[in-house]
Amino acid sequence: MTSRAIVLLSGGLDSATVLAMARAQGFETYALSMRYGQRHSSELDAARRVARALGAQRHEIIDLDLRPFGGSALTDDTLDVPVDGNSTGIPITYVPARNTIMLSVALGWAEAVGAYDLFFGANAVDYSGYPDCRPEFVAAYETLANIATKAGVEGQRIRVQAPIIAMSKAEIIRTGIGLGVDYGMTVSCYLADAEGRACGVCDSCRLRRAGFEAAGVADPTRYQTDQTDPAAGAKQ
Amino acid sequence: MTSRAIVLLSGGLDSATVLAMARAQGFETYALSMRYGQRHSSELDAARRVARALGAQRHEIIDLDLRPFGGSALTDDTLDVPVDGNSTGIPITYVPARNTIMLSVALGWAEAVGAYDLFFGANAVDYSGYPDCRPEFVAAYETLANIATKAGVEGQRIRVQAPIIAMSKAEIIRTGIGLGVDYGMTVSCYLADAEGRACGVCDSCRLRRAGFEAAGVADPTRYQTDQTDPAAGAKQ
Repeated sequence: MTSRAIVLLSGGLDSATVLAMARAQGFETYALSMRYGQRHSSELDAARRVARALGAQRHEIIDLDLRPFGGSALTDDTLDVPVDGNSTGIPITYVPARNTIMLSVALGWAEAVGAYDLFFGANAVDYSGYPDCRPEFVAAYETLANIATKAGVEGQRIRVQAPIIAMSKAEIIRTGIGLGVDYGMTVSCYLADAEGRACGVCDSCRLRRAGFEAAGVADPTRYQTDQTDPAAGAKQ
Repeated sequence: MTSRAIVLLSGGLDSATVLAMARAQGFETYALSMRYGQRHSSELDAARRVARALGAQRHEIIDLDLRPFGGSALTDDTLDVPVDGNSTGIPITYVPARNTIMLSVALGWAEAVGAYDLFFGANAVDYSGYPDCRPEFVAAYETLANIATKAGVEGQRIRVQAPIIAMSKAEIIRTGIGLGVDYGMTVSCYLADAEGRACGVCDSCRLRRAGFEAAGVADPTRYQTDQTDPAAGAKQ
């Protein structure tokens, strides 16, 4: 029987690549997205397109509205998403415990369908300084998963796979292109408009654009404005 | 400034006791419940009453519908809740990764409001054999929490407190009564009706009833039927 894997799928570049990698390893993939109150909900449309294009067996979008908690520019309309490229430390776009929550929901689905692999597009190289994107987080989560679950208690080994964690953005892009990922389908921008067009100036856009440049690959991103003057893309 | 704590509050006996214990320790308490598609949604009404009666500063009920995943008699109408008291191993009422998910949502709220303590009513004595109610689970979650979060990275210590984990049900009840908990407000039954009346025969009812007997305390539970013949309470 084909092994099943749960793949966290945001609709962005990284998780699309991870879905393609899980498929290439022969897994039957169960893609999981979350509607957590993010501003950039067009990424969920992107997730649907990506799941279909990359042959996910199932795709579930789970509703978990984190807006009552506040605390992040991605979920709190009173906080601005930085567009100046100058943030240091853990940025305001950090959503408290988001990856912990998403992995936990994935773990629940894994138990229900008999999957032992969770794929997760954390990246610790060209990333935004989030604590829950680091290798030590992935390792700690895997330890927890094997203690927390019926599968773990009964001697199955649950693996948390973060196959792009040590890759540069350019390496991720080259890997995905080798596996047939169409990055024009993906949305990474924190301030994407309803059609999924990118602002070009938030941290996520900056990382993504630099990745295509470093990979020597034409950037297929649809931007909201002519990007010869990147600052023109800013929008609040 | 008073320290804040997030308290997982199901509306049952155990978590009500834990909320009272957190308050008695002087915490400003943020009570968190979850609507995850459970059959026994009257426990959420109980959670509201308990939060108010025990002086929680805030009470949030977060929606996270786990029914698309299936796999548990508590969320899947095609599976029966056992009422014969004879289950062995991890029972069908286990909801995959539920406590991991709830602690993760609590962790997100903790980060957003600057709380460093998560209170959790796990119990490893008179319990139902769930892997995510064991001391090793609590310890693994605390380790994860300190790696996963901005607070942990910045040197704050997050604590996962499971103050009733080693208590018998009778000890829990005596502790709660000492702190003024009115257990008539709480609902533990997996098959409670819309008014919160208990079936008397599911595993949760059996543990609870035995606890009141062992504590030598009158059982304030409202049952669906006369309980002189416990089997009469079964309901599917």
